[in-house]
Parts: sequence; C-alpha cells; structure tokens
Amino acid sequence: MGEVRDIHKICPRFHAAIELIGARWTGAILVALMEGQNRYALIKAAVPGLSDTMLAERLRSLEAEDIVERRVIPSTPVQVEYYLTPKGQDLEQVVKSIETWSHRWIPVPQA
Amino acid sequence: MGEVRDIHKICPRFHAAIELIGARWTGAILVALMEGQNRYALIKAAVPGLSDTMLAERLRSLEAEDIVERRVIPSTPVQVEYYLTPKGQDLEQVVKSIETWSHRWIPVPQA
Repeated sequence: MGEVRDIHKICPRFHAAIELIGARWTGAILVALMEGQNRYALIKAAVPGLSDTMLAERLRSLEAEDIVERRVIPSTPVQVEYYLTPKGQDLEQVVKSIETWSHRWIPVPQA
Repeated sequence: MGEVRDIHKICPRFHAAIELIGARWTGAILVALMEGQNRYALIKAAVPGLSDTMLAERLRSLEAEDIVERRVIPSTPVQVEYYLTPKGQDLEQVVKSIETWSHRWIPVPQA
C-alpha cells in the first residue's frame, strides 16, 4: 500500500480557500458586492432565495475572514454598508473564471 | 423601493456553478483527479479527512453532472477508475485561480 500512503496530499490552503468561498450563498454575495451592491437590502435583492438569517450569517463570516468590511455611515438614521477588502477584491479573478466556465457548460435555466 | 426592485440579479448560471463546485470536498476531489489520482483509494488518500460515504456520494454527484466519468476496467478483479470529462477538465482554470488566491491570502497551517 506504499502507493497509497505516499501520494501527494491536496494543498490545505487551496482546500481552505474553496471551502470558504464555496460555502452556500457566499459566491453570489461576493458577486453582488463586486457589482456595487453595498447595502443589506440591495445584496438581498440581487440574490433571489437568500434569507435574512443566511445573509446576516454570511456577512458576519466574511467579515471574520477579512473578506468583507462593515462600515457604519454616521448619517441620520445610521446606515450600514458592506465593502470588499483587498483580500475580497482579489477574488475577482476567481469569480471571472467561474463565470466563464458556467457560461460554457451550465445551460440557461428555463424561465 | 424602485432602487431595490430593479437591481441586477446574480447570473443563475454562475450561482449554479459555484454551488456545484463549492460543495464540501468537491474542490479537493477535483484537484486529486486533475493530479492523476484515478482510483477511489488514491483520491481518498489525497484528501485527508474525506470519509468513504462522502467520497462515494460526491463521485456520484459529479458523474450525474457530467464532470466525472466512471470507467470499469475489465481486469481480474474488475477495477473502477474515475476521470474528468471535458466539462470537468475545463475547471482547471477555476482551480488555478483559487490556488493563486489561496497562496496569496491563506496562511500556511501550523503542523
């Protein structure tokens, strides 16, 4: 069984990255932010099917991972906005490559 | 609320693609296949923590999505091998972009 024991293991950084950005709804939320939807209601409107609980939970995780930054705008009433950090902005190439693949291989859904 | 109602919705093909390849363990299994691990035991050895149940389930899903092809080799005993289809091979650019990002932003895990 040496053949099995000695094989090259998956890079743990790749694995951590894909588990992070592949978490349900995360990809769609990242795209909404990249497209300039910076407020909670706008992100939610851009992602059909996304619940309030899940959006709040995902934004918190993305903040904890330093991918999203939460900014409190001192207006009246106070506004909260969400922005991609440099780490989050750098996911643009990943998003583009998935878009390219999906437009080649995933059929257009029926209306 | 016109601002909210009229906003550009996330592309459903992108969303389907990232939910597909972002499913837990799927990314790591795809990399193992890209690196030439074509047998069940070799894929499992390449992905630490992956259970038998989960690997079998993921291979079935990837087959159903036409990303992985299962080949039965008529040897004695019969051998089963797994290969990426053209649709699966075309994910190489996606995998590379995630690798690049992860090596820039995800710290090397402690041993």
